[in-house]
Amino acid sequence: MKALVYNGPGKKALEERPKPTIKDPTDAIIKVSKTTICGTDLHILKGDVATCKPGTILGHEGVGVVDSVGPGVTAFKAGDRVLMSCISACGRCEYCRKSMYSHCTTGGWILGNSIDGTQAEFVRIPYADTSLYPIPKGADEEALVMLSDILPTGFECGVLNGKVQPGSSVAIVGSGPIGLAALLTAQLYSPAEIIMIDLDDNRLAVAKRFGATATVNSADGKAAAKVLKMTGGRGVDTAIEAVGIPATFELCTDIVAPGGTVANVGVHGVKVDLHLEKLWSHNVTITTRLVDTVSTPMLLKTVQSKRIDASQLITHRFKLDQILDAYETFGKAADTKALKVIIEA
Amino acid sequence: MKALVYNGPGKKALEERPKPTIKDPTDAIIKVSKTTICGTDLHILKGDVATCKPGTILGHEGVGVVDSVGPGVTAFKAGDRVLMSCISACGRCEYCRKSMYSHCTTGGWILGNSIDGTQAEFVRIPYADTSLYPIPKGADEEALVMLSDILPTGFECGVLNGKVQPGSSVAIVGSGPIGLAALLTAQLYSPAEIIMIDLDDNRLAVAKRFGATATVNSADGKAAAKVLKMTGGRGVDTAIEAVGIPATFELCTDIVAPGGTVANVGVHGVKVDLHLEKLWSHNVTITTRLVDTVSTPMLLKTVQSKRIDASQLITHRFKLDQILDAYETFGKAADTKALKVIIEA
Amino acid sequence: MKALVYNGPGKKALEERPKPTIKDPTDAIIKVSKTTICGTDLHILKGDVATCKPGTILGHEGVGVVDSVGPGVTAFKAGDRVLMSCISACGRCEYCRKSMYSHCTTGGWILGNSIDGTQAEFVRIPYADTSLYPIPKGADEEALVMLSDILPTGFECGVLNGKVQPGSSVAIVGSGPIGLAALLTAQLYSPAEIIMIDLDDNRLAVAKRFGATATVNSADGKAAAKVLKMTGGRGVDTAIEAVGIPATFELCTDIVAPGGTVANVGVHGVKVDLHLEKLWSHNVTITTRLVDTVSTPMLLKTVQSKRIDASQLITHRFKLDQILDAYETFGKAADTKALKVIIEA
Amino acid sequence: MKALVYNGPGKKALEERPKPTIKDPTDAIIKVSKTTICGTDLHILKGDVATCKPGTILGHEGVGVVDSVGPGVTAFKAGDRVLMSCISACGRCEYCRKSMYSHCTTGGWILGNSIDGTQAEFVRIPYADTSLYPIPKGADEEALVMLSDILPTGFECGVLNGKVQPGSSVAIVGSGPIGLAALLTAQLYSPAEIIMIDLDDNRLAVAKRFGATATVNSADGKAAAKVLKMTGGRGVDTAIEAVGIPATFELCTDIVAPGGTVANVGVHGVKVDLHLEKLWSHNVTITTRLVDTVSTPMLLKTVQSKRIDASQLITHRFKLDQILDAYETFGKAADTKALKVIIEA
Repeated sequence: MKALVYNGPGKKALEERPKPTIKDPTDAIIKVSKTTICGTDLHILKGDVATCKPGTILGHEGVGVVDSVGPGVTAFKAGDRVLMSCISACGRCEYCRKSMYSHCTTGGWILGNSIDGTQAEFVRIPYADTSLYPIPKGADEEALVMLSDILPTGFECGVLNGKVQPGSSVAIVGSGPIGLAALLTAQLYSPAEIIMIDLDDNRLAVAKRFGATATVNSADGKAAAKVLKMTGGRGVDTAIEAVGIPATFELCTDIVAPGGTVANVGVHGVKVDLHLEKLWSHNVTITTRLVDTVSTPMLLKTVQSKRIDASQLITHRFKLDQILDAYETFGKAADTKALKVIIEA
Repeated sequence: MKALVYNGPGKKALEERPKPTIKDPTDAIIKVSKTTICGTDLHILKGDVATCKPGTILGHEGVGVVDSVGPGVTAFKAGDRVLMSCISACGRCEYCRKSMYSHCTTGGWILGNSIDGTQAEFVRIPYADTSLYPIPKGADEEALVMLSDILPTGFECGVLNGKVQPGSSVAIVGSGPIGLAALLTAQLYSPAEIIMIDLDDNRLAVAKRFGATATVNSADGKAAAKVLKMTGGRGVDTAIEAVGIPATFELCTDIVAPGGTVANVGVHGVKVDLHLEKLWSHNVTITTRLVDTVSTPMLLKTVQSKRIDASQLITHRFKLDQILDAYETFGKAADTKALKVIIEA
Repeated sequence: MKALVYNGPGKKALEERPKPTIKDPTDAIIKVSKTTICGTDLHILKGDVATCKPGTILGHEGVGVVDSVGPGVTAFKAGDRVLMSCISACGRCEYCRKSMYSHCTTGGWILGNSIDGTQAEFVRIPYADTSLYPIPKGADEEALVMLSDILPTGFECGVLNGKVQPGSSVAIVGSGPIGLAALLTAQLYSPAEIIMIDLDDNRLAVAKRFGATATVNSADGKAAAKVLKMTGGRGVDTAIEAVGIPATFELCTDIVAPGGTVANVGVHGVKVDLHLEKLWSHNVTITTRLVDTVSTPMLLKTVQSKRIDASQLITHRFKLDQILDAYETFGKAADTKALKVIIEA
Repeated sequence: MKALVYNGPGKKALEERPKPTIKDPTDAIIKVSKTTICGTDLHILKGDVATCKPGTILGHEGVGVVDSVGPGVTAFKAGDRVLMSCISACGRCEYCRKSMYSHCTTGGWILGNSIDGTQAEFVRIPYADTSLYPIPKGADEEALVMLSDILPTGFECGVLNGKVQPGSSVAIVGSGPIGLAALLTAQLYSPAEIIMIDLDDNRLAVAKRFGATATVNSADGKAAAKVLKMTGGRGVDTAIEAVGIPATFELCTDIVAPGGTVANVGVHGVKVDLHLEKLWSHNVTITTRLVDTVSTPMLLKTVQSKRIDASQLITHRFKLDQILDAYETFGKAADTKALKVIIEA
């Protein structure tokens, strides 16, 4: 079968690989229908993710059809249409029992990382019963690819951790795909204002279209002052960090109101300054989270009931044969205005 | 001044009364701009509310302008435009400190009940600092009358107590003004389905317009079976009782899913059967609540940010001189299709 | 092997049965070390539990040693010492994912009910990975038998659902084994008062020894008045129903304070009156629950750290050969003062 | 009257001052019976607290008797015995309504800071109705002085924010008075383990006596490794920072388990490093809080019901005349082993 393989920092190729087979009784083999590329795949290609060894097939998102299942799989059978979660959950360990699948002692984010992933014709999914979701009849499968990772990430790490509530004020720092996923899912709770902050006017325009009530271009270094002005000097109830660098995290701590929450979504590579000399008495909460995808069933319902239009995030479509072009397009998002690219296997 | 006075069961009159004056340092006198009639006013007129003595001016909803304040009032001054809460909160007692204003030891629901109310040119509001809300500049004052009672009642007693969540399934039994207020505010949490149940097809048509995803006319006695069918045999996550009779409460307990909640909003006059022989193992929660109006600031923000269009509830408008006509119209809602009637003072 | 078999209403016998074998890959066979008798077993023997067919081995509590496991079991192996939960949880279905194991679509309370139970030398445990718990080294195994059912039942259905909090006031109606389990576990949250109510002075004396701050004998029909007096007319924050008849449930609704919770633990056979004509405005919560045993890992820690002394509940000990005597002793608890009886296999 | 006055950095004196008088209708004048010294008073004396101007009477803790009340005070009258909160709450502003008294727009921590405090014969208490608490009959008044600040601080900022739960594992970094207050109040929730960390073996011995299950002297720089070993490599569910320097905060982030919480209590003077490059995927929560004293009524009940013995914190007693000695003793706590010193007026 064809597969996109990571061959060490800076190197990737579309190669021929053997079709995967059942290894454990709880495995399923999925014929991939549609997959996509994540910002994390670009991180891997830069050599930033030590757990991903050269030779690994990339990809941790997608929908497909069950090809075969191991003897321990009871919830799915060959022919079922399924959504694949980016997180593999054994469903039995201490963390899984607490709905913290991200820290599953034998699973977590392994797909397209420590085991082969979804950017291929077939993929082996461990713990299939608790890592796959049935696709409802009549669903827009392309839109559901957004449920493998990006929507639960924006929702769980940003919106749920950030305690977005009806009437509250929210700022989202970073208007890339993840920030926009937070923007879309924040609206499930009807906040009074959602201020979107980014350096790129294009992305801010997209944010407006996706429901932002205000936008701030932070290029002039005055974003904090502007947000404070917009909120009567008070700051926002929820500040969502969706970039992953010190400056954006500190901006969040500058604009959070007393009693508010900073919800970190971004993947950070270096430490940040935390100004406890100011914040110690500010009654704030700061949260971090690797997505658990525990909200996938709920998000499926909101997508099915049209409370969220996930398909808005999709800007480009490719065949698996063209996946190198897809990487090129996704990697140059500032030029191509790519958000999420669909790759059809 | 003119005032609508309750003169004992079945008797009411528009009378001339002296303008109220400050009695306690924490009082404010409000010149009423707009008020409305509540189903509870009809209950009083039937003689069902023992705490309301003949001679009382009715009404516990409205907006107006501050006429004067007592020396203990610090948050408002003459000329301020204000929203009056149906609940008076001292802000100091054990219950007020727990945000349970409905059970304030010296306040609670007293307006138009144990003290004179808002269906008059002027009204005295006790505990003004914690019972009035400033009207934001540019607000639609008529719509804000819905925030005195009906919207917080539907929201607090129905939606909050019922734990409505994104993706969840909700049934609302009763499509009168309170049920519709629950319907409007439930949508703040983006449930996947809201099934509206009533005997009146007219009201169900209104519900559809207000956002119900399905409606059931319960006249044939098959409402429970229909709702179970709609939910794959499972029942709803939240069943909101917005009528106040045994049959509708029991319907709620028949359609609630394991792990779900029955949130009672209706005012009940007699006991109901609770089928614990079935429900004991069903992991359900049943809640009751007299509105606390603790969500008023939040609801103000959702109305201001246009997440809710409260003005949809208003069907008729009268001058204070015509208030007897307003009662007539509101009392015959089945014929007049009245929801909320605005009375301009 | 020897096993206690239900042979239809009023009939039970200690019979010879074949040793159970693995049926599903996720099964384990456990050699039972210690088991006990539950009030529910007496209900079955009266013919009250339709799901339990004649010929079933009774018992849903116990500790033992793993004899063998199916190929799908990964967390346990032969020789492991384990605690058996009264609830079988597949860990995969919608309910299990929400930690509501009691309503597992293929499990729930099946042990000693719709499948053979633990009052035998061996027992087959379905979904072993998510229905067994490892026994910590050095643990008092006899005390851990209390963790199969009675402690999680008192804790989850009574204490957690009842939202017992530091400083709060609690009443527990019913001082039998389940009421006492609620009493022991309520103290994990340091309430200011725990009032124990029962008809039997003996059991009230036990309750005092177990930590009740006050006791009320309700034989004179004045329990509600007494509790209201003890709480300054206010009532209790939490009323736990641990009997299962209309009178005790209604007592709970009579003594709950505004804003408080009635947590039902008792198994009810008939409907009760719910006085919504009084309670509709009382801001109360009423909960029901079949134990999920989702708190077992937490309770294990509190027992291991000596925050709870579960062994206090054990009053009698028998060998499996004497299990008919054990039933006799447990069935005449008023005379024998039995709470929980241990049966050693 | 006599009063301890801050006269600029390094300077304090016991001076003669006029008895305070009612300024606002909501004021009360309290005759102080007992007060104490807080670590924050030492901070002021070092010149670290810019809001406290020379000439201010220090002290924000104490019990006393109401001397007189303003016309707006309804809950107290002359002669009432009262506990004074360190936080003044207007009860009306947006923050007070959300139970965040620490950020009251006209109150908060002002006592002995921006207005005269309690280390005097009399003190003016603003917003008396919502800043004083009646002392129950028969209470140990000396012990209640611990409820003005230190117990609610340890409880709200450490235990509540840290989400301490039955069976959970807790580490408290800093075994001074505040850390010990967290230790005492953490036990209200029956955690399985409480590991106390400090540099001073004396204080660790006190911690053991107060209920710590283990202690770690961090002088050797190996505290993190030791705590990880004690918790099977997992870390603690709750890490409470009760010192206020970068090293202790970072220790907390090193020992918190995935899914756990770091609750900051300490007053910080400089920024800290936050290692998001490790923590971003760790699903942790970090909280900060200036005490709100919203838990005072609950803590009063737990002290009254003997769930907490607050008097254990008191090590020394002085008369107001000897307050300079009291400062000396409290300031040299390492030598004198002082925890809290009582000053009798």
